[in-house]
Amino acid sequence: MRWKKLDPGPPGIYALVLATGDDVPTELGRFVREQKIEAGALTAIGAFSSAVLGYFDWETKQYKRIPVEEQVEVLSLIGDVAVSEGKPTLHMHVVLGKRDGSTVGGHLLEARVRPTLEITLTEPPGYLRKRKDPESGLALIDLGRS
Amino acid sequence: MRWKKLDPGPPGIYALVLATGDDVPTELGRFVREQKIEAGALTAIGAFSSAVLGYFDWETKQYKRIPVEEQVEVLSLIGDVAVSEGKPTLHMHVVLGKRDGSTVGGHLLEARVRPTLEITLTEPPGYLRKRKDPESGLALIDLGRS
Amino acid sequence: MRWKKLDPGPPGIYALVLATGDDVPTELGRFVREQKIEAGALTAIGAFSSAVLGYFDWETKQYKRIPVEEQVEVLSLIGDVAVSEGKPTLHMHVVLGKRDGSTVGGHLLEARVRPTLEITLTEPPGYLRKRKDPESGLALIDLGRS
Repeated sequence: MRWKKLDPGPPGIYALVLATGDDVPTELGRFVREQKIEAGALTAIGAFSSAVLGYFDWETKQYKRIPVEEQVEVLSLIGDVAVSEGKPTLHMHVVLGKRDGSTVGGHLLEARVRPTLEITLTEPPGYLRKRKDPESGLALIDLGRS
Repeated sequence: MRWKKLDPGPPGIYALVLATGDDVPTELGRFVREQKIEAGALTAIGAFSSAVLGYFDWETKQYKRIPVEEQVEVLSLIGDVAVSEGKPTLHMHVVLGKRDGSTVGGHLLEARVRPTLEITLTEPPGYLRKRKDPESGLALIDLGRS
Repeated sequence: MRWKKLDPGPPGIYALVLATGDDVPTELGRFVREQKIEAGALTAIGAFSSAVLGYFDWETKQYKRIPVEEQVEVLSLIGDVAVSEGKPTLHMHVVLGKRDGSTVGGHLLEARVRPTLEITLTEPPGYLRKRKDPESGLALIDLGRS
């Protein structure tokens, strides 16, 4: 395990609210790039009218797409922000709840908000960097030696 | 998307612990009103002896009730606090785990704790306001223009 | 309900990254003991190649073991840190996502990371203590009177 204590000083805390029709990765991706968020952790709840989730297939090293074509509660959205190839980049996983309370979840690829997604983003001082992992082909957070 | 950077300065962080028999919305609702928490984000884990979850039905604009009548692990409770009609108000979503590891989730309407619910609440400086959304009829966080 | 406002001052925020093969409770347990983290809240996402989850059986007062023997996305890992019998101790619950998006969850007993687990740990000033609960036999966070 590697770890890093981020620089002292109070974190920046952002409230972000998405509205009906917003695509989550598009909107939040633009936000973290424009605001130059170089490290962050976020949680969110709300609801989607549809989504596409991903499951990383360890054999093919590709994301299998799992479409969700119904109104769902966003029971849990947990994510982080790190710099990959010079740009702030989001990584988000969700658990979604259906009409009967059953759940479906995965890596968030696409998501259409309806009517709201309420996000709290904590931006600690400091930054996190991603580096391509040769085994998986994924960009993973690389803390260097600590 | 709208967003708001909450005033600088260290957030207040609260540890809250509920015990057997406590109803979560009742106890936490009283806490945020009494302590005048005007913005907040919370996560929690623990266990419930029963709960009632909600799924917001986009057709009827009502919450469908999903009763859970068994001891469940609280795998994830994520929530936020904002001021609605002058009063601090909670919004919480949960994922619950059954004896075989299967899950059920939704908007938290009622929940009876057994034996504990361990909550971390972060209260950033600043406040969040809710306003009634004409389309859904729900009170949603309104950040105004930013 | 009991609650405690943790001492003012900015929290410490740690980014921790586990890599392929790491066991989560082992690695994080060592970290919180070595760094003397006496109170904390954490969230994480990533993926496991296998895990063992627990469901606390209220009749037997034992954890029923739920083995997960496949590559899964870590959709949500939420946890806290408190001092139990003089030592920093972790409590973590997870929701895991399978290839078809179906989920399984529970108390985290064992988990093998593949390829990454990205954790954000917030360490507020102050501390939390656990005490054995006579009814369940579990060590629960005890805030004393507040």
